Amino acid sequence: MEQRLSLVTLGVADLERAVAFYAALGWEPGNDVAAQDVAFFQGPGMIVALWHRDELATDSAVADTGGWGGITLAHNVGSPEEVDAVLADAERAGATIGRPGAATDWGGYSGVFIDPDGHPWEVAHNPFWTIAKDGGISL
Amino acid sequence: MEQRLSLVTLGVADLERAVAFYAALGWEPGNDVAAQDVAFFQGPGMIVALWHRDELATDSAVADTGGWGGITLAHNVGSPEEVDAVLADAERAGATIGRPGAATDWGGYSGVFIDPDGHPWEVAHNPFWTIAKDGGISL
Repeated sequence: MEQRLSLVTLGVADLERAVAFYAALGWEPGNDVAAQDVAFFQGPGMIVALWHRDELATDSAVADTGGWGGITLAHNVGSPEEVDAVLADAERAGATIGRPGAATDWGGYSGVFIDPDGHPWEVAHNPFWTIAKDGGISL
Repeated sequence: MEQRLSLVTLGVADLERAVAFYAALGWEPGNDVAAQDVAFFQGPGMIVALWHRDELATDSAVADTGGWGGITLAHNVGSPEEVDAVLADAERAGATIGRPGAATDWGGYSGVFIDPDGHPWEVAHNPFWTIAKDGGISL
């Protein structure tokens, strides 16, 4: 298995609401959401999808116990100020702020927003990692 | 918020066991796991991390309800045969096969393995998506 991840699918209760939330953050699906009943967002090197959580559970061969399941996403940006700006944008779009931006013990700065389906996103500035022009990140 | 994801962190019960599982699949951390108490794997454009699930829950400002939480990962490959080969490798490394490789209703071929911490990975061949030389995928 090569060292890479192609797709992260977020299970959602209401696809239209979820697409509207990410659209409010500036994300645009690269596919025909209505026709395909799924939304795909192209990122650098990988894709993020939104799909019905019940169908995702069945397709993933797991039982859905509800709530959080041990996976957290992160969106890295170039400065502490950008962390605060993204958190503010997310809150305006309908997210809950899990923790506001603050300095971390590992020498960075981060906060967390929770999307309307309960998926947490850490928004972080990690001065030890590099963000390329296309947004791709490297250790 | 730019349309990109930087990091996916998988919460694990036993970091050493989790690192050993992904190492058996050929993955190599790009950091000093013992010193940092976290494993980072560089992928094309993004990073996958393994970290203690209890600490991840606290850091993510969520309650851990146990089980699956509505996020599924996927690893895309170039052919149905490669899907079957990755699933077999994962099973040998200690994964559970959630569903074996089979043709899908969307015109591809996929199966699912569940890692030792319960995180499902769909292994898929999607003939409509493109895999670049560096492993990055595009719609």
